[in-house]
Amino acid sequence: MLWQWSTMAPKMAVSSRNIDIQRSDGRDMSAVADTVAVEEPLEIQVVSAAPQAAAAKSVSITMRTPGHDEELAVGFLFTEGIIADRSQLIAVEPVGQPDQITGLCNTIRVELSADVELDLASLERHFYTTSSCGVCGKASLDALRVTGLQSLETVGTMFAADLLLDLPGKVRELQPVFVATGGLHAAAIFGPDGEISVVREDVGRHNATDKVVGALFQAGNIPGHSRGLFVSGRASFELMQKALVAGIPLLAAVGAPSSLAVDLAREFRMTLVGFLRDGTFNIYAGGERIA
Amino acid sequence: MLWQWSTMAPKMAVSSRNIDIQRSDGRDMSAVADTVAVEEPLEIQVVSAAPQAAAAKSVSITMRTPGHDEELAVGFLFTEGIIADRSQLIAVEPVGQPDQITGLCNTIRVELSADVELDLASLERHFYTTSSCGVCGKASLDALRVTGLQSLETVGTMFAADLLLDLPGKVRELQPVFVATGGLHAAAIFGPDGEISVVREDVGRHNATDKVVGALFQAGNIPGHSRGLFVSGRASFELMQKALVAGIPLLAAVGAPSSLAVDLAREFRMTLVGFLRDGTFNIYAGGERIA
Repeated sequence: MLWQWSTMAPKMAVSSRNIDIQRSDGRDMSAVADTVAVEEPLEIQVVSAAPQAAAAKSVSITMRTPGHDEELAVGFLFTEGIIADRSQLIAVEPVGQPDQITGLCNTIRVELSADVELDLASLERHFYTTSSCGVCGKASLDALRVTGLQSLETVGTMFAADLLLDLPGKVRELQPVFVATGGLHAAAIFGPDGEISVVREDVGRHNATDKVVGALFQAGNIPGHSRGLFVSGRASFELMQKALVAGIPLLAAVGAPSSLAVDLAREFRMTLVGFLRDGTFNIYAGGERIA
Repeated sequence: MLWQWSTMAPKMAVSSRNIDIQRSDGRDMSAVADTVAVEEPLEIQVVSAAPQAAAAKSVSITMRTPGHDEELAVGFLFTEGIIADRSQLIAVEPVGQPDQITGLCNTIRVELSADVELDLASLERHFYTTSSCGVCGKASLDALRVTGLQSLETVGTMFAADLLLDLPGKVRELQPVFVATGGLHAAAIFGPDGEISVVREDVGRHNATDKVVGALFQAGNIPGHSRGLFVSGRASFELMQKALVAGIPLLAAVGAPSSLAVDLAREFRMTLVGFLRDGTFNIYAGGERIA
């Protein structure tokens, strides 16, 4: 269980920062101590292990909350279609000078096996357009199919409705930085028994999702057919796509889904749960997996 | 007042969609009708009015909620530093085939005057790194200064604390799609008197912000020294940067700010209000503008 959230506590120091602020109720103002979630850039570089390979190339700079940066880099490369199997990972390591405040490096370099084709054009999201339809949601879904993503129709994992209701509370208990700052999204991986195996926090919900998917990937647990993905915010096309790439049949969101998230779920036979809070939830697709 | 939210009502039809779903309380499941916020890709193209200019070039594909797409395109180009003055806008128009469902085109083409240097490299966010410090938040702030952005220290606009408290409720009343779907972010521009002049909704808070800034830009109201920017979610580095580019001295967020949003506000002498809800708020920077 290398990929458990066992390193959670030590990360507190780099994921949040204490500052002095003022608080107002519209009449009086008072000085108070507060804690904010840290946001810092992370550069993800890739380099090929092939002989005479080109120098390391930057493929992304994202604003993220420090901590679990290796998982974020790996999850990003996987959900964006650059890598497909962990045997392609030769090395994942921080490079450059550590940040003065967090002590963490803000660049992760991923060395990939010689067989990985660095199709960086795909990172520019050309898949949103096809010649047949131009730019539209339908084309976005078609393009996912073109990349080889399969329907999850045959994935028969069942999830109990009452266990889903417990997820928001369970995840909150495992969110130390959110409790301190009120300023972070969470993503979590859970099983049909409602047990949470990994939780990650980030100022960006796509980053939090990449971190948990990266953890699954590094542990060899892809496809995640027997797991569900929980997110603390809304369900967008992008988050559904990441779950699909990871083979996770159910996404449960505390907030609302978008139209295109619903379309993706229905097209690829995934289960999409939204507004999971206060004792109820909505099922937007794939209700047959909810017992 | 061309840029008012007067076109709000007609946009409902394209910004939300009715679907059939199931609702569960953990024991019983029932079929109900629901409404979701529409998410569709938008491509932003630029083309130069210069003689022998290159063909239109795609600079961004973003997932957005249809409606006010021209403002989104213009606001994006402005806050990303591609254009600086509305005299540089020769034409802003939808191109391509209208979407079958929304009736809107998903591509906006912006024709720019011959003097605009299409420095598209800046869109790749190279400004996050400098040779002196590598990738870090400090470098991100330094890089903003290098692009010519000035401190807003001398902007003396004052905002009354009790009027700030009313903003979340006022904005909510102007958010028809949120009320229907529960699934949208809002951004709004307001004055020192608490009056809201423009509200925009989107599945992405950066898009909602680009839309309101684009509205200011098209109306010739940049710099927005006498205005405040309200956002329904959290305050990130990116949103603070957009407010800074627009010359708006105060950003008020319903949610938490990140560390780098606070750093940016303090460095550029902006006012940053967070957790604006339930009758109180926190001031993270620039309290001298709050009366």
